[in-house]
Amino acid sequence: MTNPTAAILIIGNEILSGRTQDVNVNFLAKRLAARGISLQEVRVIPDVPDRIINAVNELRAAYGEVFTTGGIGPTHDDITSECVAAAFGVPWEPHPETFAAMEAYMPPGQFNAARQRMATMPRGAVPIPNAISIAPGFTIGNVHVMAGVPRIMQAMYDALEPSLPAGTPIAMRTVYGMGLMEGAIAAGLSAIQDRFANVDLGSYPFRKEKTGGVAIVAKGTDPALLESAIAEASQLIAAQGIEPVQGEPA
Amino acid sequence: MTNPTAAILIIGNEILSGRTQDVNVNFLAKRLAARGISLQEVRVIPDVPDRIINAVNELRAAYGEVFTTGGIGPTHDDITSECVAAAFGVPWEPHPETFAAMEAYMPPGQFNAARQRMATMPRGAVPIPNAISIAPGFTIGNVHVMAGVPRIMQAMYDALEPSLPAGTPIAMRTVYGMGLMEGAIAAGLSAIQDRFANVDLGSYPFRKEKTGGVAIVAKGTDPALLESAIAEASQLIAAQGIEPVQGEPA
Repeated sequence: MTNPTAAILIIGNEILSGRTQDVNVNFLAKRLAARGISLQEVRVIPDVPDRIINAVNELRAAYGEVFTTGGIGPTHDDITSECVAAAFGVPWEPHPETFAAMEAYMPPGQFNAARQRMATMPRGAVPIPNAISIAPGFTIGNVHVMAGVPRIMQAMYDALEPSLPAGTPIAMRTVYGMGLMEGAIAAGLSAIQDRFANVDLGSYPFRKEKTGGVAIVAKGTDPALLESAIAEASQLIAAQGIEPVQGEPA
Repeated sequence: MTNPTAAILIIGNEILSGRTQDVNVNFLAKRLAARGISLQEVRVIPDVPDRIINAVNELRAAYGEVFTTGGIGPTHDDITSECVAAAFGVPWEPHPETFAAMEAYMPPGQFNAARQRMATMPRGAVPIPNAISIAPGFTIGNVHVMAGVPRIMQAMYDALEPSLPAGTPIAMRTVYGMGLMEGAIAAGLSAIQDRFANVDLGSYPFRKEKTGGVAIVAKGTDPALLESAIAEASQLIAAQGIEPVQGEPA
């Protein structure tokens, strides 16, 4: 069985300008892997209507699930919701339950036009509840529209997760060779990869304060295969006269 | 004059798996803004040949400069260089100067097939020198192929920057309203945006340990306009009975 696929679309001038360091991709990547959903692409685009509409349509056609982050607040630069409506070719209209809930939540006179925009959604959208904010995310088709603020996005994902398709969890095993050079084991590693077609074997040089080396990472849905591949990689490292270390290096 | 445009292509299973938190986008975003290059898109894709070839071709057609990170080491999962050759439709062949330099650098017998792959580049590629590694990045056409390891990528960008086109530096000014709600100022902020067509005005709720509020960010190439827009946003915040704070909030 093949795992479901997903893409993340970050609508974020603040990421492209360098003002903000994105952390949503890493959170979602880990959670999707645990859910058995294969994250296949991430895009970051600016708050420009045509860019958003085109990206939503490209990604929802190409992948099983699309997660957007950003642009669902009340200000002029929050245009994700109306662009998703345009991408789906449906009206953008007040969502009755969300509208009523926000009206009840806000002090009298405070539910102004800007806040009413937040209760406006593509027709057919299903709100994503979240415990910590009135920010209304929603799902329409296979597109999940979430906040950009990490803790709100995370609360939305928590609420959303049980309704997502689930695959076989994607696990990772790692072995480190301190002082190892990638070039010394490349041929051996390639041979291991060839023997384990269902394991995704990666090699990542790293450097900590006083040490450095290479991390060999085996990724896949069959833990026994991962263990076997990492055992072979460990022998490869040992053959270089370096003690292989599984787990986090010192 | 319009600024040059750019995209970043991250070739990185390790980002999509959640193993690694990307920091290269934020570094490049800031440096490109200072150089006056408008970063228009970021994509993260897996180490899959067709995905790399298609993304390189889409992005190099759409933007002035394309920066790739990742996949230029000696192991089997390092396939960026050969994929860029395929994208450009040119042979992938040993680069004589790089080949000779790496051969001279490595101890006798150590310049094996895997390391020779690192000295193999698309025909017409110009190496990007870097002070701290033998990893050979290169430029071909408007595509700049760089390492994924942040400190090596940064050294490559340092070397590359003087040869990039330059535009008018993109600056930012920020004013904070502590305890401010976006919904209270959305209409006023939209009116300011309408008056400053050449300023990109963003509104970002934030929350620190004990405080929270909204950051209003003005971005653009004319510092005087940014100051004026931020002055108006400050008045908007003050009209809510909140003291506007420029610079980093306490």
